[in-house]
Amino acid sequence: MLRIVILGTGNLAKHLYDAFITTKDVDVLQVVGRNREDLQQFSEYATISNDFDAIAEADVYLVAVKDDAISEVSKYLSNKKGLVAHTSGAMCLNAIQTTNKGVFYPLQTFTKGIAVDFSNIPICIEAEEKDSLESLRTLATSISENVHHIDSDQRKKLHLAAVFVNNFTNYLYHVGEELCLEEGLSFELLKPLILETANKVQIMSPIEAQTGPARRNDLKSMGNHLELLNKEEHITLYKLLSQAIKQAHEEEL
Amino acid sequence: MLRIVILGTGNLAKHLYDAFITTKDVDVLQVVGRNREDLQQFSEYATISNDFDAIAEADVYLVAVKDDAISEVSKYLSNKKGLVAHTSGAMCLNAIQTTNKGVFYPLQTFTKGIAVDFSNIPICIEAEEKDSLESLRTLATSISENVHHIDSDQRKKLHLAAVFVNNFTNYLYHVGEELCLEEGLSFELLKPLILETANKVQIMSPIEAQTGPARRNDLKSMGNHLELLNKEEHITLYKLLSQAIKQAHEEEL
Repeated sequence: MLRIVILGTGNLAKHLYDAFITTKDVDVLQVVGRNREDLQQFSEYATISNDFDAIAEADVYLVAVKDDAISEVSKYLSNKKGLVAHTSGAMCLNAIQTTNKGVFYPLQTFTKGIAVDFSNIPICIEAEEKDSLESLRTLATSISENVHHIDSDQRKKLHLAAVFVNNFTNYLYHVGEELCLEEGLSFELLKPLILETANKVQIMSPIEAQTGPARRNDLKSMGNHLELLNKEEHITLYKLLSQAIKQAHEEEL
Repeated sequence: MLRIVILGTGNLAKHLYDAFITTKDVDVLQVVGRNREDLQQFSEYATISNDFDAIAEADVYLVAVKDDAISEVSKYLSNKKGLVAHTSGAMCLNAIQTTNKGVFYPLQTFTKGIAVDFSNIPICIEAEEKDSLESLRTLATSISENVHHIDSDQRKKLHLAAVFVNNFTNYLYHVGEELCLEEGLSFELLKPLILETANKVQIMSPIEAQTGPARRNDLKSMGNHLELLNKEEHITLYKLLSQAIKQAHEEEL
């Protein structure tokens, strides 16, 4: 049985707590955070505390706080024997200020109030010590079948790739919604297409899946599209992305 | 029973044929196209012909050919009594050169060889005559529960919105794959995130779903990301999309 303490009370902390309390091999001893109110949601299966000087003894401490706060929070754990791991895609292993350090990064977007199935979520782990890595692997495999050992440089690049396929993609959905609303159309119309576009690259590479006027270098259609756009940032985006698609396919040839 | 003829032998023609042959209320009489070899795949449940002067009498003619060829193909139908409808998102109703004209536009991305469930796919119909519109509605509802009457201007804007959420989004997936490969990581790692990002906007608006450094105006994280990017077009895209996200959220406030 691996005994863990979760530090932080945000979105990720809650999703990790929800996942770990259902496992047999992991015991969530305690959740520690500044805000008493936010701590309440963890009180059913763990002890809760807002005192960072009263953290329980555990095998692994999961620091699920904002990137800027990782270093500071980890200092409270400097006298602990257990492994201290942060959960950030963007931060180095060395953001942790203790000797026994690690990273436990679930690569997914988490939404408050919506349950997630961790079993397929990639969990990226990193540690210097072999034993630490094994503890993280045990922890990760208790909730996911998709566990990867990657280093800090790889993780940072992966986090950046996630910004493109998640944050930036979501912005394109927003533009789609804006264009629908300009014509009094519902965003509902685009939802099946959005899903199928995401489904398609589950079974073929994005370069193979690419379609559209830019892919065909269909200048007439692109000209017509540009005439329909009103907002300057939509026009700039249309031109830039069309040019990039055209170039990517010329490189392929 | 609605008797239809499909003109064209491409990807959409095949998906429409596959959908209509399973319905009770629609009979696919004939498929007409230039290429004898491409016609063979339609021979099981319809007669096939490569002679545009030997098109059967039918209630509806679905012109599922490239945008540039719609006008020309429709001329072969000028003596027919039946309704002639094209299937393009980008073309006007008037691209059809016959009196009894319409549009039957399924808003989805179709992949060769991969079966689709039409039941949830939005089918956008348009016609001048009330009877024609009713024929298109009968045709559309025989395969989909998601049928919308929209005009040519609305459809063109919708088609443009589809370019953003499908073609451009797919390109961002490609960038994600490139960034993974730079670090020797598999694109597999991003697939669950891609799906969840698409799933998220099925239940909340993209503006609500937006996360990431640009949304938070986290200059430090954005600076770190820009340092990790090597390709000029990735840097330009990162800056432009981050700026657009920042601006969209300032407008919301």
